Amino acid sequence: MSGDDALKAFQGYLDISPFQRWLGLKVEATEHGVLTIGFDWREEFISNPGTKSMHGGILASLIDLGGLYAVLTTKSVATATVDLRVDYHRPSTGGHLRSTSRVIKLGSKVSTAETEIIGEDGKLVASGRGVYLMA
Amino acid sequence: MSGDDALKAFQGYLDISPFQRWLGLKVEATEHGVLTIGFDWREEFISNPGTKSMHGGILASLIDLGGLYAVLTTKSVATATVDLRVDYHRPSTGGHLRSTSRVIKLGSKVSTAETEIIGEDGKLVASGRGVYLMA
Amino acid sequence: MSGDDALKAFQGYLDISPFQRWLGLKVEATEHGVLTIGFDWREEFISNPGTKSMHGGILASLIDLGGLYAVLTTKSVATATVDLRVDYHRPSTGGHLRSTSRVIKLGSKVSTAETEIIGEDGKLVASGRGVYLMA
Amino acid sequence: MSGDDALKAFQGYLDISPFQRWLGLKVEATEHGVLTIGFDWREEFISNPGTKSMHGGILASLIDLGGLYAVLTTKSVATATVDLRVDYHRPSTGGHLRSTSRVIKLGSKVSTAETEIIGEDGKLVASGRGVYLMA
Repeated sequence: MSGDDALKAFQGYLDISPFQRWLGLKVEATEHGVLTIGFDWREEFISNPGTKSMHGGILASLIDLGGLYAVLTTKSVATATVDLRVDYHRPSTGGHLRSTSRVIKLGSKVSTAETEIIGEDGKLVASGRGVYLMA
Repeated sequence: MSGDDALKAFQGYLDISPFQRWLGLKVEATEHGVLTIGFDWREEFISNPGTKSMHGGILASLIDLGGLYAVLTTKSVATATVDLRVDYHRPSTGGHLRSTSRVIKLGSKVSTAETEIIGEDGKLVASGRGVYLMA
Repeated sequence: MSGDDALKAFQGYLDISPFQRWLGLKVEATEHGVLTIGFDWREEFISNPGTKSMHGGILASLIDLGGLYAVLTTKSVATATVDLRVDYHRPSTGGHLRSTSRVIKLGSKVSTAETEIIGEDGKLVASGRGVYLMA
Repeated sequence: MSGDDALKAFQGYLDISPFQRWLGLKVEATEHGVLTIGFDWREEFISNPGTKSMHGGILASLIDLGGLYAVLTTKSVATATVDLRVDYHRPSTGGHLRSTSRVIKLGSKVSTAETEIIGEDGKLVASGRGVYLMA
């Protein structure tokens, strides 16, 4: 697949999920073992209206799904998340976010991927890892 | 506070967050160090339309927020999640879910809480822990 | 197996490992899905000589191995640890410790177990979870 | 401090701990926010004598302590591990290992560091993260 075709293909995979459509994800880049997804802060994502900070569950969702689709960029198929770990580094209170997921270890039974979510100012908002069951 | 007043108070705290309102959370029980929240599977939560399984990010959200509000039942205030860990045990494909969060260790600087999410059949869907920064 | 025979059998399994022999582990109780191991604080385990606190790596070791052998109490065999998560609650500065591991979810591909380590004063020192690959 | 002085200083910090001396750690490199420690596989570290694989607890110990001392390279002081997460990627059955720890987020209350442990063949053996309480 050419680059554009790969972006369209992965966008299609992401958009199969109603929750992922609700998140408003846009595949920005893909290569073997790496997937970058963009999304925008919005009011519905707010955890604390006082600070307007994005809910940790939204960020956890990106780390969960990003790692699973990063495995898919290697032509291997992950069927489910075994477990997820998320570190929260800074509040996200607006703007565009970019989530980059990389496969750390591709296995025959389980695979591990790491995701970093960066805010519009280039600073790390959250990062973490998922372990995924392989088909 | 009487039991009913406590439920109403915690429902109010949860409903401050637009994302938590979107999740459709209902506080079902509260005691010192323990908070039980009910919510219903719905189409918008789907990860995989083939299996209708709930997205891991929704379950992670409950574990994140449940632990933080469980800390609040002790009259201590947690201001942010430091990190989150989620184990996925079985797919949730419908019905009512109940999420019970318990404080494991209340600290002056950080506190740890554990959450279990049970499906309508009484089986464990997901469980995990959060570490929270104290006010 | 009678209770005593089970204790002896599990003690034998633990003592196969040179590192586990060095830790000085003693199987104290076993039932289906649950394993209790006792061990003693000692100078060689110290992380910080100022406080005499036990090294986090020793506690992590107990959570790793305890969960794996707890899976074995169900007659299922876990072959390797996929990942490990440890929460440190209080320093351990002496005395006898008891580590109790319980299987949370027994799966065909991976299983999850949780371990609590309690000090001589009955207080929680550390706790955590492992995910294990099944044979 | 010159490079050699920094290595000596960090070697001294590591060697304060009896358990860390037992592990046979050697500081190989240090810069702001990064610490590299070498150590050798040895019989006492074995988990499974059949495969000669190193115990997960030894690898977890390196991830725990490596992150804490990596924080120290920034002239900030971490006093205790809040929690630890370890992914096991491949068995280590011999040779020299190199553990590199990097600070991901330096905070005033808690800091997060990530560690990778590489075998003599250059392959990733284990990796993970710790969250540390700041002085």
